[in-house]
Amino acid sequence: MSAKPALHAVVLAGGAGTRFWPLSRQARPKPLLQVGAGRTLLSETLLRARRIAGPGRIWLICGAAHAAAMRRAAALPKQRVLVEPRMRSTAAAIALAAHRIAREDPHALMAVLPADHRIPDTAAFARAMRRAAAAAASQGEPLVALGVRPTRPETGYGYIRLGPPLAGHAQLHRAARFIEKPNRARAQRYAARRDYLWNAGIFVWRARAILEELRQFAPAIARALAPIGRANARQLPAALQRAYRRAPSASIDNAVLENSRRVACLPVEFAWSDLGAWLALAENLGVRPNQSRVLRGEALLHDAGGNLICGADRPIALLGVHGLAVIDAGDALLVASLDRSDEVRAITTRLRKQRRRNLL
Amino acid sequence: MSAKPALHAVVLAGGAGTRFWPLSRQARPKPLLQVGAGRTLLSETLLRARRIAGPGRIWLICGAAHAAAMRRAAALPKQRVLVEPRMRSTAAAIALAAHRIAREDPHALMAVLPADHRIPDTAAFARAMRRAAAAAASQGEPLVALGVRPTRPETGYGYIRLGPPLAGHAQLHRAARFIEKPNRARAQRYAARRDYLWNAGIFVWRARAILEELRQFAPAIARALAPIGRANARQLPAALQRAYRRAPSASIDNAVLENSRRVACLPVEFAWSDLGAWLALAENLGVRPNQSRVLRGEALLHDAGGNLICGADRPIALLGVHGLAVIDAGDALLVASLDRSDEVRAITTRLRKQRRRNLL
Repeated sequence: MSAKPALHAVVLAGGAGTRFWPLSRQARPKPLLQVGAGRTLLSETLLRARRIAGPGRIWLICGAAHAAAMRRAAALPKQRVLVEPRMRSTAAAIALAAHRIAREDPHALMAVLPADHRIPDTAAFARAMRRAAAAAASQGEPLVALGVRPTRPETGYGYIRLGPPLAGHAQLHRAARFIEKPNRARAQRYAARRDYLWNAGIFVWRARAILEELRQFAPAIARALAPIGRANARQLPAALQRAYRRAPSASIDNAVLENSRRVACLPVEFAWSDLGAWLALAENLGVRPNQSRVLRGEALLHDAGGNLICGADRPIALLGVHGLAVIDAGDALLVASLDRSDEVRAITTRLRKQRRRNLL
Repeated sequence: MSAKPALHAVVLAGGAGTRFWPLSRQARPKPLLQVGAGRTLLSETLLRARRIAGPGRIWLICGAAHAAAMRRAAALPKQRVLVEPRMRSTAAAIALAAHRIAREDPHALMAVLPADHRIPDTAAFARAMRRAAAAAASQGEPLVALGVRPTRPETGYGYIRLGPPLAGHAQLHRAARFIEKPNRARAQRYAARRDYLWNAGIFVWRARAILEELRQFAPAIARALAPIGRANARQLPAALQRAYRRAPSASIDNAVLENSRRVACLPVEFAWSDLGAWLALAENLGVRPNQSRVLRGEALLHDAGGNLICGADRPIALLGVHGLAVIDAGDALLVASLDRSDEVRAITTRLRKQRRRNLL
């Protein structure tokens, strides 16, 4: 028996996140979105990471455009922040982290934590992650995905269909299928069943195990990233440039999880949300038909319930309006029906066509 | 027969106008509200005044708080801008103007033009005013009020009930009654009849005639203002201070028009609106269910019809919202249902209680 393997936490903060325009920008991405007094999605994720991984074992993956802001916000040791030269989705980011972790500790476990989720119950999260880590370290070294019990027929999330229980693990099941965002009718069927769970995008596995599966099911990504495992700190930036020029873009779900037979799912009961748009954030912050929420700044409300308000340096008065997101980013203002807030891309697409980079 | 008496135009711009908050302020009142490229309500009113009164016969009455801004905007000779030391409603303002005009020209006619109305057809307005002036100069020297044919059961306007035709004047009637803003049921009855007209607040009379009627029906106001007729330019500021300390506040309707038997009404057919709130301005500017209007600044609209948008120095994106006033004053922002925009006082009252003068 070897000693209990160390668990590393890898925070994925590489997304662009213009879905929270005008607050999130290319230069001010979603993980840096404030969700409370002084708290960002990133800082909440780092808090969760610290609950499960010791000092020196927390990693942050982010894009070059945000590296400075992320470094400032995360306050991690320099070599623990891995900067991707370009956006290549989650498979490359996970391969990158797995190589750097395995290089230091070939037996290490790694937990993958997206930096833009909300999980209010940190203790329940930490318990589930310890269980997932124990499973990932056990015989067969399964790739463990957390599955969240659906509370509504959500079309914005992917789903995992549970297979039979995994022998020797009280709560784990085989993952029978990974399903991308379904349409409304399918989402309703899934929500009515017990064997479809939301894919939280939170995973635990041995660094070595995910690299093995990448080699088997995503050889182009594995080949492109392989030199990362051999580069020393000085060589790393150039190695990353070369690797990311070659690496195809694919999600870890597409690249590995839909194909590998080593994937297990741990059903969890804690509340979880992937804040996909202003509506999700509003619901998460407690906006109700008769209750508005002010994320930041000052609001003067007169018969104005059900709104999410985020101010800059001027007061925002709301009069007789309901169900709106009113977001003042200082240099741009959004007034959107919360129901339609997932269409904010229509605005950012137009700004992109107009080449108004300062607003994107 | 004397020569045709000269017509002076008196523009009343003394109101506070926080109904267009946050754009109109104590320091930036409603007449200075922009209603088009480079045009304000005041500048449109001055254009109308120039159509009916010769150079040197246009007067502006405004409050001390706005005097500097009004002088700049109006570009009238110094002695043609009369600054009221405090707000005392229309009777005192009209008495003030009548005294200054009669002092220069005892036979002069004066037209009273509120500075916050919209009348798109300036030519029709000028024709009506010439007819009113001819009547006001004729035998009996009636006080002529313009009456606008109602197009809807408006509860925000006063009404004039037409009496019998005035002998010797083709289109004039006696004014049988002046009626303050009615409730909804009465407004509907009035709108269904031919003999109730909107009181446009536009009047033509001999300066001497209105002073006579003020002496008879509003003696306290007449006594307070009497020294204004004897003051020279140097004495005027001190005389105004004394007069306005003593003068009661009353509208000219209450003080004179409801009581005098010399009042006539000239029905007019041109479009007229007293912009009482954002909704009225929106309708006036052509906001329709599928059509938004941008008063100023830049708007990015995605499925957002029926809105009135006024921006400052940042773009405003509207997504899936309808029937809103979105007004960015730079230092304050209003998002209101246009239907409810007459309740903006609820916001300004709160700001007043908080003593936030910079926002009022």
